[in-house]
Amino acid sequence: MNSATQYLNITEPFSFRRGGSIPELTLAYETWGSLDANKSNAVMILTGISPSAHATSSAQDPSEGWWEPMVGSGRPIDTDRNFVVCINSLGSCKGSTGPDSTNPATGKPYRLEFPEVTIWDIARAAQLVLDHLGITQLRMMVGPSMGGMSGLAWLHQFPHGARHFLGISSSANAEPFSIAIRSLQREAIVSDPDWQNGNYSPERWPRTGMRLARKLGMITYRSAREWRERFGRLPQDRYEPTTFGMNFAVESYLENAAAKFVSNYDPCTYVYLSRAMDWFDATEGHADLTDALSHIALESACLIGVDSDILFPVHQQRDLADAFHANGVRSNLVTLPSDQGHDAFLVDYDRFRPAVAGYFAQVLDGET
Amino acid sequence: MNSATQYLNITEPFSFRRGGSIPELTLAYETWGSLDANKSNAVMILTGISPSAHATSSAQDPSEGWWEPMVGSGRPIDTDRNFVVCINSLGSCKGSTGPDSTNPATGKPYRLEFPEVTIWDIARAAQLVLDHLGITQLRMMVGPSMGGMSGLAWLHQFPHGARHFLGISSSANAEPFSIAIRSLQREAIVSDPDWQNGNYSPERWPRTGMRLARKLGMITYRSAREWRERFGRLPQDRYEPTTFGMNFAVESYLENAAAKFVSNYDPCTYVYLSRAMDWFDATEGHADLTDALSHIALESACLIGVDSDILFPVHQQRDLADAFHANGVRSNLVTLPSDQGHDAFLVDYDRFRPAVAGYFAQVLDGET
Repeated sequence: MNSATQYLNITEPFSFRRGGSIPELTLAYETWGSLDANKSNAVMILTGISPSAHATSSAQDPSEGWWEPMVGSGRPIDTDRNFVVCINSLGSCKGSTGPDSTNPATGKPYRLEFPEVTIWDIARAAQLVLDHLGITQLRMMVGPSMGGMSGLAWLHQFPHGARHFLGISSSANAEPFSIAIRSLQREAIVSDPDWQNGNYSPERWPRTGMRLARKLGMITYRSAREWRERFGRLPQDRYEPTTFGMNFAVESYLENAAAKFVSNYDPCTYVYLSRAMDWFDATEGHADLTDALSHIALESACLIGVDSDILFPVHQQRDLADAFHANGVRSNLVTLPSDQGHDAFLVDYDRFRPAVAGYFAQVLDGET
Repeated sequence: MNSATQYLNITEPFSFRRGGSIPELTLAYETWGSLDANKSNAVMILTGISPSAHATSSAQDPSEGWWEPMVGSGRPIDTDRNFVVCINSLGSCKGSTGPDSTNPATGKPYRLEFPEVTIWDIARAAQLVLDHLGITQLRMMVGPSMGGMSGLAWLHQFPHGARHFLGISSSANAEPFSIAIRSLQREAIVSDPDWQNGNYSPERWPRTGMRLARKLGMITYRSAREWRERFGRLPQDRYEPTTFGMNFAVESYLENAAAKFVSNYDPCTYVYLSRAMDWFDATEGHADLTDALSHIALESACLIGVDSDILFPVHQQRDLADAFHANGVRSNLVTLPSDQGHDAFLVDYDRFRPAVAGYFAQVLDGET
């Protein structure tokens, strides 16, 4: 664990939306910058499925964060002007309590005994950190990918909780294409004989399922356009040939990406959070998205999407911007022409830096 | 086997492009209509990865063919005016010799002992059927999907073999996105413990791998756009709930499609032909595609693509049309705005019927 990560231990039961509860809960989070006197400069980042709370480096923990170029002194999410809090999602395996955490009742990992996690639960747990920090209203809620869903679920439950919302490559719910992809990723994992109904061990790890799931993930995180330029039909020379093994550079790229992931992410956590994204629907119980967002008291919202993103297509960001606008929230849609698909917010900083910095500048200008 | 299917048995060895040979060879094919006196009205159809030679019904075999609305009396590929031959690809499992055929040396299926199949081999084997039928020049070579690749490989080897070429949702080679998808499908199959290095049996069949491969196939055969309209976020009610099982209609649709496929297609054949598509490159050994097609003596070419096809994107059809045009072949690109992706030629007949009929009308008009 990184030295800058803080842990909030809640010793009361936490009840989940779809039923079940856990007797206690730890939430891992990290902060940068200083909260100003009237606690008005807080920015919360909720993350995608994989990242930890370590969004960026600091003196305490100089290791590179998952959003290093975006968060820090003088960077788009400027820690000189904002008190930034990044929270590892409830249900994750990077410090917060999740299926891979020890079940105090048994002394073993929860695994499938962990209650079904929803995006709504992740959002409610994030609020516990804000309560602990004494923050009653954020300057901005920032959510890329699954984090944008968590951000919407949080705004829905805490409609006065933020003045501004930045949603990145996210959506109000998943479309059938994205559901199909994630369903297949989960099926690959739980069909692996080494899954053993969640009772896998380091010695018998569902490596095949995780590898397939990650490769399918990579295919949908990037874009055909990027790969056409980057790999074309170049042969691969990284791995030994095997029967029906790899021939092309794009195949060894996927193999390499999968190899890094397989052992570094808990399979049970993956299927839990993947399913949570499919289930989430911000419009649930409402006539439409405009109605669903009508009680949210934001001053402004900015939705950034990438035109090559097939997992959270840009029209889903447009739907959100339109719905906020229809509710009188000053809202903007920024469409970035990046070739790097859903992953662009993690790699195409030349496009993302000015887009995020621009929105922060607009928000801070409005406060003076 | 259907009663209308004919079998050409070649009792001489057939050598494969990447090495190896088989001592004898059967090619399954079916014909409709009559060859005219000067044998000038022949149309050959080469198929995608799955279909048999039974493209359409006839008096002899009234069962529905895989391209029923497209081929027949008064249909776009009109069997009153054309002598239509459809050939089951070499390496397939629908009557022609392939990895699932009996190896005469062992009396058991070839499986991994079958030589590596390439698209070039499929094309050369198709010519054996034309030789047998005494056809020296086709009116038209028709190839959808993999069949279009086979058609190009055939034209490359028999450059005076056809006066016209109709390529549908196909390409001169595979892009890295399509390679990645097919690579993952193959990996799912050969990673299944029941694959047993090709020694699977009806009792131990790589069902999980085949199911995953087919579902991934379906995801890339259709389009996000179609599924958004067709399924949205509708729940599924076809299957019993299981842990990490299906929740949404799109998931039960995939499950149902996969269930039909798993037992009806030979796993070894699937990985062989899938790999053949990745390997194929019509530009191999040439400066570019224009150079690669320069010796092909067509009068005209028509390339039909679908704007929602992610597996054989429409710009690949444009590249072919441009390359034929650059070589002085009258060529046309037809882009169909179908939501049904790569599968549109098998389902969106309202769009495909007039496109194919239009090209045939143009060709037949030019002959009078």
